[in-house]
Amino acid sequence: MYSTSQPLLGRLALAATTKIVACKATVANMSTTAQSPPYDKLLSLGTKIVGVGRNYVAHAKELGNAVPKEPVLFLKPTSSYLENGGTIEIPEGLESLHHEVELAVVIGQKARDVPEAAAMDYVGGYALALDMTAREIQASAKSAGLPWTKAKGQDTFTPISSVVRH
Amino acid sequence: MYSTSQPLLGRLALAATTKIVACKATVANMSTTAQSPPYDKLLSLGTKIVGVGRNYVAHAKELGNAVPKEPVLFLKPTSSYLENGGTIEIPEGLESLHHEVELAVVIGQKARDVPEAAAMDYVGGYALALDMTAREIQASAKSAGLPWTKAKGQDTFTPISSVVRH
Repeated sequence: MYSTSQPLLGRLALAATTKIVACKATVANMSTTAQSPPYDKLLSLGTKIVGVGRNYVAHAKELGNAVPKEPVLFLKPTSSYLENGGTIEIPEGLESLHHEVELAVVIGQKARDVPEAAAMDYVGGYALALDMTAREIQASAKSAGLPWTKAKGQDTFTPISSVVRH
Repeated sequence: MYSTSQPLLGRLALAATTKIVACKATVANMSTTAQSPPYDKLLSLGTKIVGVGRNYVAHAKELGNAVPKEPVLFLKPTSSYLENGGTIEIPEGLESLHHEVELAVVIGQKARDVPEAAAMDYVGGYALALDMTAREIQASAKSAGLPWTKAKGQDTFTPISSVVRH
């Protein structure tokens, strides 16, 4: 559905080390079949992006973070979604925009207090996503004990691929 | 539309100082006219709750927080909305659930980079809301430099009144 002539990581690394103001993002299309209906639904009807942090020990150590007893949860607004092939916008003056490649688990129906044994019944599909983080904004928020919203929630900060149905 | 036989603050103060597990919330109905269409739309189609913190100097000082140069933004999920008259659920084991009464500004259309002079064109209405915060969870998040998601984003943590059109 989407094509790319440059490897993803190379392009985003460029964005992180130079001060260009926009960066084309292509997240791998995970399926060869038409995925428009669930993808459109995710982008238009999704109401919540829950990020899970500190669940990857090597990355926690890389950033000098303590590995917590339970995963750290943070929210990103759905307005930060960037459709596959779209352009990541780098806020003016930002020096350090990092990307992390994420497996996005698409929750297909309303869920609450789900027992572990039934958890997979709520998974509607999977996608690849990038979690873009403005590191200097996050660093100052962390040191002040403040939310990460401005560091992670800006428009285009969640590029997302098409959805593979579960 | 909704009625109450007890004052709001008295009931919520009860919730904060005792360990009851549920608390009926009635946020003042701000209008005497029927408000169902915009209210239903907010509850069913809303995708984002942006909280603004540290913009009330007396409260920042009360909690011993520095007053920042710009307002602190944080996100709450729309799944935390509680319809007027609904029951606030207090997570088991929680000692300190605080409420703050908020003026909710309902953004009526998609907006980005709006000049100050045009800002009010995007305001669709107003409501009263409560921002419920699990203070001990927030306190440990703050000291660890972690997000406030679990402290503020739980189901029923954003009771909201009907909407007064702008």
